[in-house]
Parts: sequence; C-alpha cells; structure tokens
Amino acid sequence: MSVCDVPAGGRIAVVGGGTIGAGWAVVFAAAGYDTVVLDPDPAVAGRLAAMWETGLPVVHRVGIVADAVRPPVATTDPGPALSSAAFVQEAAPERLALKRDLLRTVETHLPPDVVIASSTSGLSASDIQAEMAHPGRLVVGHPFNPPYLMPVVEVGGGRLTDRAAIEAAAALYVSLGKTVLRLHKEAPGHIINRLQAALWREAVHLAVEGYASVGDIEKAVTEGLGPRWSVCGPTTIFHLAGGEGGMAKFLKDLGPEFERWWDDLGNPRLDERAAAILTEGIAEATGHRPVAEVAARRDRLVAERIAAWRTDDD
Amino acid sequence: MSVCDVPAGGRIAVVGGGTIGAGWAVVFAAAGYDTVVLDPDPAVAGRLAAMWETGLPVVHRVGIVADAVRPPVATTDPGPALSSAAFVQEAAPERLALKRDLLRTVETHLPPDVVIASSTSGLSASDIQAEMAHPGRLVVGHPFNPPYLMPVVEVGGGRLTDRAAIEAAAALYVSLGKTVLRLHKEAPGHIINRLQAALWREAVHLAVEGYASVGDIEKAVTEGLGPRWSVCGPTTIFHLAGGEGGMAKFLKDLGPEFERWWDDLGNPRLDERAAAILTEGIAEATGHRPVAEVAARRDRLVAERIAAWRTDDD
Repeated sequence: MSVCDVPAGGRIAVVGGGTIGAGWAVVFAAAGYDTVVLDPDPAVAGRLAAMWETGLPVVHRVGIVADAVRPPVATTDPGPALSSAAFVQEAAPERLALKRDLLRTVETHLPPDVVIASSTSGLSASDIQAEMAHPGRLVVGHPFNPPYLMPVVEVGGGRLTDRAAIEAAAALYVSLGKTVLRLHKEAPGHIINRLQAALWREAVHLAVEGYASVGDIEKAVTEGLGPRWSVCGPTTIFHLAGGEGGMAKFLKDLGPEFERWWDDLGNPRLDERAAAILTEGIAEATGHRPVAEVAARRDRLVAERIAAWRTDDD
Repeated sequence: MSVCDVPAGGRIAVVGGGTIGAGWAVVFAAAGYDTVVLDPDPAVAGRLAAMWETGLPVVHRVGIVADAVRPPVATTDPGPALSSAAFVQEAAPERLALKRDLLRTVETHLPPDVVIASSTSGLSASDIQAEMAHPGRLVVGHPFNPPYLMPVVEVGGGRLTDRAAIEAAAALYVSLGKTVLRLHKEAPGHIINRLQAALWREAVHLAVEGYASVGDIEKAVTEGLGPRWSVCGPTTIFHLAGGEGGMAKFLKDLGPEFERWWDDLGNPRLDERAAAILTEGIAEATGHRPVAEVAARRDRLVAERIAAWRTDDD
C-alpha cells in the first residue's frame, strides 16, 4: 500500500478523548501538529484543555516541543476532522466490537492511504482490522500512560497490516522522541502488559498465600527491583551477574536455580478472597490515603525522575 | 532464647569475603561496628579494602555513617573473630551443604546467644538450621546486591528459629537505615527473587518465541515499567488505575483481562536454544560492550538515582 506522509504541522486526528486520547493529543500538538480530538462527548473539550495545561510542561522536560505550537482542539464532528487528517491515533475504550464499529465510521471519512494506529493495550491488530475496508493501514501504537511522559510505544501489525504502515507509524513516533518497541508477533498484552502481568501474578500469589504483606511486596519493588530496572533490564542484570563470562556463565551457574523458582511460582485467581486481601492490603500499604493523593505523588515523582534521567550521561 | 545485644561499636563477624560479604562489611563498619570478615582466602583483605573505598562514599549518600569509623578487617582465623562477636552475618556461597558445614565450625567458637543471619538469596532457613547446635538463632537476612547501596533486606526464620532472633536482626538492620521486608512463610527465592524470576520468565518466553528482540524487551522495562516501579509497586499501580474506586474497581473492570493474560504467559526452559537466543540478544542489546563497562554504568546510575530519591519529598 502507498502510505500518506505526515507533513510537519499536518493534521493528526485522535479518535477518543479519554485519558489516553487526550494524552496523545498533548504529544502531537506539542510537536507542532494540527491536532483534533474526535469524541461524541462535548465535555472532552474541558478535559483536553486541562490535560494540555498539565502535560505541556512535562513534554518540555522529557519530549519534543516545536517552535510554533497550537493546543489540540476537540470536536464531535467526524467529517472535517478526518477528511484532512494525515494520521489517525485511535484511543477508544478497550472493547473489540466498539473499536470495530468506530473504525467503520472513521474509514467512511478518511482517505484510504492514511495510517490508523490503535492505542490498544492488549487486543490483537488482526482482530481489530478484520472488518475494515482498508485493513492494511491498521497498526498497533500502544503508549504507556501517560503518553506525554512515558517514552515507550509498542508498534506492530496484524495479519493484514502493510509493512509500510508500520514503518510510517514507527517513524512518526520516533520523530516525537518516543522509544519504539517492535512487536514481531501478536500476543495478548503485547510486551509491557505481559511482563507487568507476570510480575503481578507472583505478587498476588505471595500476598494471598500469606508469604508477605502487600506493603512489603510493594517495597521489594520500589526499593529493590524498580531502581535497578530503571537502569538495566532483567536480562542485562543477569548478564552482569555472570561477570566476565556474561549471560552464558550466568545460565550455567544459576539457570537450574531459576528453573526451580519458576516451577514454584504461584498461579492465583482474582477471586473474592484475593480481592479482599488485595483491597485491604493496598489500603494499609498506602496509609489509607485517597487515591488522588497517591496518584499525584506518583505523577510528580515519575516525571521528576524521567526528566533527570534524560540528562544522565549514557 | 535470650539474644545477645549488639552494642554500638560492638563486634560483628561477617563469614565469607565474597561480593556480598565484603559489601555487608562496608555497611557494618560504616555504621561504627568493629567489623571482621572471616575467610580462608588471604586475598580477601585486598578485595575488602577496595570495596571499602568504593562503598563508603555510597553509604555517605544513601545510608548511615557513624562519627568514628574503622575499616573492616579480614582474617583467616575463626577463633578470635567469633568468640567476641555480638552478631554474625553469614555470606558463604549458595550451597546448602557448604553453609551447614560452615555453621558447625562457627558455632564451636560463637557464644550460644549470638544471632546468625544468613545472606541466602533463596535457600530455606529451615534447611540451613537443621543440623545446628542452637538452631533458634539462625535467621535469614538477605540483602539486595550491593548491600551498601540497596535499601531492602529480607528477614525471616525457619521452623526452629526463635522470634527474638528475628526481631534482633530486624532491629539491627533498621538501625543501619535498611528497609526490612518480613518473610512470614518460607518460599524458594523469598520475595524479591521470586518476583524477579516471574518477570524474567515472561521476558525469556517473549525473546525465545520471537515476539520481540531482547533489546526491546529490556527497553520495555528500563523506559516503561522500571521508572514507574521505582515510585509505586505493582499493586499500587493498579489501585491507582481504578481511580476513586481503587483496587476494588480495578479488579472488577480489569481482573478478567489480567486472568486472560496470566493464562497466556509462557513457561520456557533455559535449554540450549534459549541460551543461544539470550546470549546473542543481550550482546546486541548492550552494543557488544564489555560486561565491566555495562556494570560500571549500572552501578553509577543506580547509586545516583537512589541518592537523589532519598531526598525526594515523600
């Protein structure tokens, strides 16, 4: 397929004005694109303005800001927003039928060579594109929330996706200062959510079976694994643990021990008992503070840390 | 059991002068304890001096340094080191038979009321203490490497451990500025190594089955999950994802999706094919740089980050 270029200052349409869509809009608008957010809810305009106010200073610290910048605008009218768009970022709720219906509408207004990137956090591109008129243009472009702060974007396609569409989306994200992670094959949850789910499964197991408190499991991550993993990935850590012999030495010395631990990991279910233990445990671990207060602290500290790291000497 | 106090400036014996033992010695000596490292290898003295030079400035930034400080000293003679010790930190290689033999020797020189903490990263205290003369004093005190930098220490006991011994070790570690994680029940790999193993299992699965490159999986952690996990643990993240409804709302909305992802996670083996993919993949991901160079960068950045975070406004 021939793929439409995204010219500097060109129009990008974001479909869906929730947290992810509005966050994406901040990224595109900050980089100088003419950004329109399409959503049937007129209240989106106010939320978008608030997100712009929160997000733009963050992009100044960690991302790409163009010389001439216009705030993103919200609209409820798909026709004008889409007919002149050079790129579409879909950020609708994570339900397959809803995304399929929405893309049917989008395609009636959109020129056929315009790439559509879905922000899906774990659905398959093959499923999303199955009923599309031009399925070759549908790619996954999954950001880590909030998109204006976190660097990584997962990029891949489905069975019918054209390689040119994947490359166009990847090039756009790279031009925004993003780190593109390539999905070579489809898997539920892509990469990030699978890794997150894997760690959390054992965290739930340890808490539910009474091996440790929820609070102590959280600290094992925030004061142990997390600081290290912000510098080196899990395989790099073990490569270094092998000393001069690297990964080969590590696998020889400690591979059997890790397989022993793997075989002992838990396989919990999120039933009522688990829900009660997690709900009470996390309330205690967060000192019964309101969610908004804990979230504000997280947003502030993560932003400070990523901004600081971007200046680290690599 | 009655447990010996560890008086300020009292003697602490570290049994084993490898990376972990020497690292512990830096922590104890920096806090003002009369620290002796017992190891049959006379070369330990030189390595200990080097570790002191590297580690003491780190403790100044992230830990507790006493007014009067003496460097730790190495010895090959167990008698004098142990007969006057008020606390023992065992840091021998991770082999059960070796630890049991060593503790038999230690106990012949050590007063019976002195607590022995094992640095074991994943063996069971019940197994380690089974043949001891005074098993009630044997606790787990597992640091995260390097002990002079990382805050967390996992603390627990075995079937025969006296609660007073656990509390004495925990109090000592807290006085050193450490974050104590309580092990309520024994499990291979305690908490941290199980969580680490769980994440790595899926990382290996994704790499070996070709879902993504080793390098992109590493970036999913260093530029996505790691920065967040250095601020909020995995359960806190999902508690916040539930908005005002917190964990209960999250479990209702996304519990089934996580169970779906859990059921799809892989169960790889570390066979020859996996070893080849991981070894080549990590060489590429680290730009074929020597292990020592990558390790030096990790040590520098992790130390800078933890030092900066300790001044974060909580």
